[in-house]
Amino acid sequence: MQISNAQRASILVSALPYIQNYYGKIIVIKYGGSAMINEQLKDSVMRDIVLLSLIGVKVVLVHGGGPEITEMLKQVGKESKFIDGLRVTDKETVEIVQMVLCGKINKNLVNLIQNKDGKAIGLSGVDGHMIKARMKDERLGYVGEITQINTKPILDVLEKGYIPVISTIGCDDEGNVYNINADTAAAELAAGLNAESLFLMTDISGILRDKDDPSSLISKITYKQAFALKEEGIISGGMIPKVECCISALEGGVKKAFIVDGRIPHALLIETLTDEGIGTMFTGEE
Amino acid sequence: MQISNAQRASILVSALPYIQNYYGKIIVIKYGGSAMINEQLKDSVMRDIVLLSLIGVKVVLVHGGGPEITEMLKQVGKESKFIDGLRVTDKETVEIVQMVLCGKINKNLVNLIQNKDGKAIGLSGVDGHMIKARMKDERLGYVGEITQINTKPILDVLEKGYIPVISTIGCDDEGNVYNINADTAAAELAAGLNAESLFLMTDISGILRDKDDPSSLISKITYKQAFALKEEGIISGGMIPKVECCISALEGGVKKAFIVDGRIPHALLIETLTDEGIGTMFTGEE
Amino acid sequence: MQISNAQRASILVSALPYIQNYYGKIIVIKYGGSAMINEQLKDSVMRDIVLLSLIGVKVVLVHGGGPEITEMLKQVGKESKFIDGLRVTDKETVEIVQMVLCGKINKNLVNLIQNKDGKAIGLSGVDGHMIKARMKDERLGYVGEITQINTKPILDVLEKGYIPVISTIGCDDEGNVYNINADTAAAELAAGLNAESLFLMTDISGILRDKDDPSSLISKITYKQAFALKEEGIISGGMIPKVECCISALEGGVKKAFIVDGRIPHALLIETLTDEGIGTMFTGEE
Amino acid sequence: MQISNAQRASILVSALPYIQNYYGKIIVIKYGGSAMINEQLKDSVMRDIVLLSLIGVKVVLVHGGGPEITEMLKQVGKESKFIDGLRVTDKETVEIVQMVLCGKINKNLVNLIQNKDGKAIGLSGVDGHMIKARMKDERLGYVGEITQINTKPILDVLEKGYIPVISTIGCDDEGNVYNINADTAAAELAAGLNAESLFLMTDISGILRDKDDPSSLISKITYKQAFALKEEGIISGGMIPKVECCISALEGGVKKAFIVDGRIPHALLIETLTDEGIGTMFTGEE
Amino acid sequence: MQISNAQRASILVSALPYIQNYYGKIIVIKYGGSAMINEQLKDSVMRDIVLLSLIGVKVVLVHGGGPEITEMLKQVGKESKFIDGLRVTDKETVEIVQMVLCGKINKNLVNLIQNKDGKAIGLSGVDGHMIKARMKDERLGYVGEITQINTKPILDVLEKGYIPVISTIGCDDEGNVYNINADTAAAELAAGLNAESLFLMTDISGILRDKDDPSSLISKITYKQAFALKEEGIISGGMIPKVECCISALEGGVKKAFIVDGRIPHALLIETLTDEGIGTMFTGEE
Amino acid sequence: MQISNAQRASILVSALPYIQNYYGKIIVIKYGGSAMINEQLKDSVMRDIVLLSLIGVKVVLVHGGGPEITEMLKQVGKESKFIDGLRVTDKETVEIVQMVLCGKINKNLVNLIQNKDGKAIGLSGVDGHMIKARMKDERLGYVGEITQINTKPILDVLEKGYIPVISTIGCDDEGNVYNINADTAAAELAAGLNAESLFLMTDISGILRDKDDPSSLISKITYKQAFALKEEGIISGGMIPKVECCISALEGGVKKAFIVDGRIPHALLIETLTDEGIGTMFTGEE
Repeated sequence: MQISNAQRASILVSALPYIQNYYGKIIVIKYGGSAMINEQLKDSVMRDIVLLSLIGVKVVLVHGGGPEITEMLKQVGKESKFIDGLRVTDKETVEIVQMVLCGKINKNLVNLIQNKDGKAIGLSGVDGHMIKARMKDERLGYVGEITQINTKPILDVLEKGYIPVISTIGCDDEGNVYNINADTAAAELAAGLNAESLFLMTDISGILRDKDDPSSLISKITYKQAFALKEEGIISGGMIPKVECCISALEGGVKKAFIVDGRIPHALLIETLTDEGIGTMFTGEE
Repeated sequence: MQISNAQRASILVSALPYIQNYYGKIIVIKYGGSAMINEQLKDSVMRDIVLLSLIGVKVVLVHGGGPEITEMLKQVGKESKFIDGLRVTDKETVEIVQMVLCGKINKNLVNLIQNKDGKAIGLSGVDGHMIKARMKDERLGYVGEITQINTKPILDVLEKGYIPVISTIGCDDEGNVYNINADTAAAELAAGLNAESLFLMTDISGILRDKDDPSSLISKITYKQAFALKEEGIISGGMIPKVECCISALEGGVKKAFIVDGRIPHALLIETLTDEGIGTMFTGEE
Repeated sequence: MQISNAQRASILVSALPYIQNYYGKIIVIKYGGSAMINEQLKDSVMRDIVLLSLIGVKVVLVHGGGPEITEMLKQVGKESKFIDGLRVTDKETVEIVQMVLCGKINKNLVNLIQNKDGKAIGLSGVDGHMIKARMKDERLGYVGEITQINTKPILDVLEKGYIPVISTIGCDDEGNVYNINADTAAAELAAGLNAESLFLMTDISGILRDKDDPSSLISKITYKQAFALKEEGIISGGMIPKVECCISALEGGVKKAFIVDGRIPHALLIETLTDEGIGTMFTGEE
Repeated sequence: MQISNAQRASILVSALPYIQNYYGKIIVIKYGGSAMINEQLKDSVMRDIVLLSLIGVKVVLVHGGGPEITEMLKQVGKESKFIDGLRVTDKETVEIVQMVLCGKINKNLVNLIQNKDGKAIGLSGVDGHMIKARMKDERLGYVGEITQINTKPILDVLEKGYIPVISTIGCDDEGNVYNINADTAAAELAAGLNAESLFLMTDISGILRDKDDPSSLISKITYKQAFALKEEGIISGGMIPKVECCISALEGGVKKAFIVDGRIPHALLIETLTDEGIGTMFTGEE
Repeated sequence: MQISNAQRASILVSALPYIQNYYGKIIVIKYGGSAMINEQLKDSVMRDIVLLSLIGVKVVLVHGGGPEITEMLKQVGKESKFIDGLRVTDKETVEIVQMVLCGKINKNLVNLIQNKDGKAIGLSGVDGHMIKARMKDERLGYVGEITQINTKPILDVLEKGYIPVISTIGCDDEGNVYNINADTAAAELAAGLNAESLFLMTDISGILRDKDDPSSLISKITYKQAFALKEEGIISGGMIPKVECCISALEGGVKKAFIVDGRIPHALLIETLTDEGIGTMFTGEE
Repeated sequence: MQISNAQRASILVSALPYIQNYYGKIIVIKYGGSAMINEQLKDSVMRDIVLLSLIGVKVVLVHGGGPEITEMLKQVGKESKFIDGLRVTDKETVEIVQMVLCGKINKNLVNLIQNKDGKAIGLSGVDGHMIKARMKDERLGYVGEITQINTKPILDVLEKGYIPVISTIGCDDEGNVYNINADTAAAELAAGLNAESLFLMTDISGILRDKDDPSSLISKITYKQAFALKEEGIISGGMIPKVECCISALEGGVKKAFIVDGRIPHALLIETLTDEGIGTMFTGEE
């Protein structure tokens, strides 16, 4: 289908109220899943982020990196122990985690953004001791829970006009480093930054009322309703922690939280700059 | 034709390099002709301007107002004298000109921009004595030629985040007010502001190699070539002063000048944010 | 009488404490009546304003324009309808009002100030949507009552070193424009700006205890006393709305309000920079 | 003679162009002679300075103190030696000089200004090592000639809104302090500050063509003409160093220099804010 | 004993936590006693102050000057009257006080700091009317008690990067000057500036539990304990006013107050940058 | 040996002129060799850096990481090919390089600085595209030579008060990443930043006139002399590239360059804050 330039212009104009709404506000994007593995999707997400940044949105990009960590552990021949099905993160493992997140994925994303004429600086929870953490469960080793968020380095970097790209490792005053769940960290950073919106990019369409029926997608939900659905068991499995992140972000003062399907090209732009809601939006009061 | 939101997003993204190119730069738009009379087109132009302003372009809007001045003169029963076919602008006439431009058209445009959630302040050549002028030809009365441009008030208003909307009357140190040709004023303001681009919105498609053949549109021309075409007589009639404005703006340091067909919806956006050139672009060297 | 330069210097020095008192503070001057019609008085008022501005007072000039509006309506042959003696302001009439106020009077005042080496920018309630309004009485048409004051554009213009000259038209979100009483607007702007003083320039000497006896002028009055006098009927006729403006300004936080006789040359300077009170000063508590 | 408030206002207004001319500019006043001894004159000069400061002139006050130094030396029983009629300034003497200038006169002037609601800070050539000097003639001891002017502390103090009051002692890198001629220091500070004007307050009317005929006062002179008059011997005696200061200030870039009769009340205001020239004004080219 | 550069470096490093603690904070140093008379000690104190200033501490230096005042009074042959053993400060005496403090001692200290490449400006309670005072006891004449502290001039001077050196004379609105006890003034200035620490440099080791036993030095004490010791009579004689200053400073919000033995070289640095406490430190709660 | 606190204070004071000299200036430290492997030395270097940063030096830390890269390559079983004795850096290898430098070493250093209460942010040549590079020799793969230095991100981070810690990978516009020699990068960054000094921390004492005689250390040398020594063959082997870096830094405008023995504790502080030169200092002209 051929779209004329006049139509293009008209589409740009129709984005106007959405741009006005987000202008000058902070949004936190948790980037992960398929959108991070598929090269074409990755490219498209970075382009979306540069666009959002250019039209005045203050984008903070938080990334995960599970698969690449697993791959690296395998490469160095590190065997993982498990307790109750959870991987034990010993000193050596957390070092690999740090290296892959901060050294590989983070810099690759920064590089992609820069190559699209965006401006980015990569940070981690260690830089400016932005994410302070402690051991969650001694048996699991260096898996951290956040004790304190220091948003100053992020705000400094935003003020200077860069998109901060953040690896979610945490640290304590003794020099230990912890692996922090990226969804949780994104939610806490969004709350600490008083963000307008939190976007969790996932590999699912959003919350389904019937998990086998894609047409049962819930487009909009208050966090109280979400809490109720969880109690009822409708939200279950891997969806639970995602939903909990959205709820805690909203409780922390974030205006809106989204579970977005990262497999859809330009999912971020569609959610932010059009009237279509392709995932599930969590809000405060109705 | 139905355009999906995914397509919309992809179109937004394709505007990215154009946005990057204009980011933080000043463009001067001379607004007039049909685009100013037709209510729907007017609405569309104002929307385009708010969008450009929002994505970081510093828009300066210069307007004319011939038809409304003529209409008002008729209403107050003022008969015009003519010398060699040119209207004599006596004291009474220039007062009407000032009133219609600064009081009617200017404030209406400001109001339209504000109602689209843009921020605008209306100015005239009198405010901050921005446009100093003198009589061009004593027989014609208060028709002015510019003697000095003071861009400070425009830059002050831009810095505070407003779109300056400018009525092109001029003034001198004795308290006289002059009617200034809006195209000429726009070109001199663009030069004084060191603008990236000047857009003259007109009721023609651009420069045609054969004035009866719309397909002979010249999309891109250097100002030296334009000068040559004028010598050859290919540029003629009402087109001459428009082309001269573009040439003088480029000589004054403006990077690009455009003659744009204001009758085409979103002509401004198409010129600035897409790869299509719908009018004639004047550049410096090839 | 010959005044020596030594006496002149001594007079300048005697203004010192008054200058110190007003330094850096905002005063709102409602300018109208004879002082606006008589060319010599107009010139003298503008000179006073430039002087006040130069010695560090932040002057905001609000003007009316009744007689010139009436004159223009007559010129265009617009007949006015009246309901209960009040003029009906239809769409066409409010357009004339806007044009005369913003296009003629406003720019003329700006021009006068600039020609006295002051710096001025003309604004209206439409610029930056500074004065939001709604219809007061449907039968009267576009006569507005203020719903919201946005002082940001005025403060922006003051900060950049200009004297803002303000036409009191109002606007709403639908694009309508309203005629707003200039006294009322000046009082609300003064309150919104947290002004030190409001000056209403009129054609009377101030409040007289006996309206036929000029020697019964009340020089100083608290707004509670003024309210009482109104109840007693001593303040009556055209004086009532003026007094109500002063009272509402003081209730809104303005420190002092003055009814000043604009027919007296330099009335403003006499009130601000000497110990003589030539009109009536309204204060808060005694 | 009774002067009405209307006349007062009109006089204030007539000062307008002079105020506009000096607005935001630096003037250096060398204060000394009778105007510093007579309490009433001193009071009047300080009041003039506060007024000038309030209307936007950046006043720098440089003072001398010969008579009070002589008085103090007498009090402590210090006998002065003389070489060729010039007083030898030994270590003990320069300590008394420093003490009287910086401790007595300077702080008294600061106190007077503050008591007139001006804001002042007293400085000396030692503060921020503003005036660097070396011995002029070994036989005369600690009489200094200026080697370097550092205007930063003066500009810092002006920027913070204070009137700097300056004692003209100098210093070197070894900790020595020197007595510096106040006229000379004022001229060099004025040049270093790129001042608009230098005012030397003296006990004479200005330069007289015939020193016995007060009516032969030269009101205006170029510094080249002054140089010529000196060669001719018309400028002679104590007048020579004053005139040389004016010449060197103008050579250093100061726009105008004045020899003003400090015995005339408000001489400073008369020179700056009226059209009367009561002393002699030195200018660059004619 | 030879100290290697490696040891020097290691000593610099060991000062790190102390530097971090004082970085960007204000400390007020009351300078007097032997440390001000002995040239070598004076030199060493000034060097310490430049160092503290350079590593980011905002030093405010307050000085006394008893001995030099007494010496000057003797020199000018001024005999002092005494009432109940207290010296009567008549007009003539307070003039000498002002002259010696502001003119001699203050500028000498400023000069010393500048010669060590520090930046200093001398101030007094008169500059910017920083210390307002009134007569304490009519019989004693111009001995002042502080009525108001205005810290603005000190903060202005600090902001511009200078070390303010302060002479503790006070003033009132009638132009009178008062001699103010330097310890008291330092304590009130410290409180007004919300200082981190106040240092009183004295000629004693600190508070001794047994005044004849140097080994009974109290290193650290809360101000409540100090108050109790005073009640018990353990703090007595000349020590009482010093202790009272420390107590009042702490009550006014200062974090720590020190009585430091100025006879020990680098006493200030030892107290601020090492773990040794060589005098008595007063703190709030234990 | 026991060092008293008085001695400590005196040592701090003796560092004063050195602190004054470096205050506010940029120094670039290339950190590597033994000082980076030995935990105790590493700790000591980080402490030195925090101290330098605290006393107003703007420290930029550039690190290498050869041994850890080799170790990691071994761990992942990556065998290296060699051409003429030089390791071929294929895509996979440069990814490991990036990961180890940016993810492991960089963040560990940042963490160490933060744990000493310094403030640090880790950057790489990719962040803000700070180091642009191209392939040096196609046979060697992704070994880069610098084509462009962009110091903006470093200056931004310094301005916000952080110590930038920099991994020397480079990038191009196609998304490729290159391994850049850390010494070379440090020298070019120092030149680009107009640094006061460049410090190359190595495992040798400096330049020896006779490489087997430690007592033949050359403490100070101009870069012209260094160039001559190289020609003579006295500078040879691994020393050559280090010396070339120093020479090119000086040619690029750096004031002084140092080859410092990182095995000596506090070598940095000894070079910067004492009069001892423990390595070789390169200067411009003699």
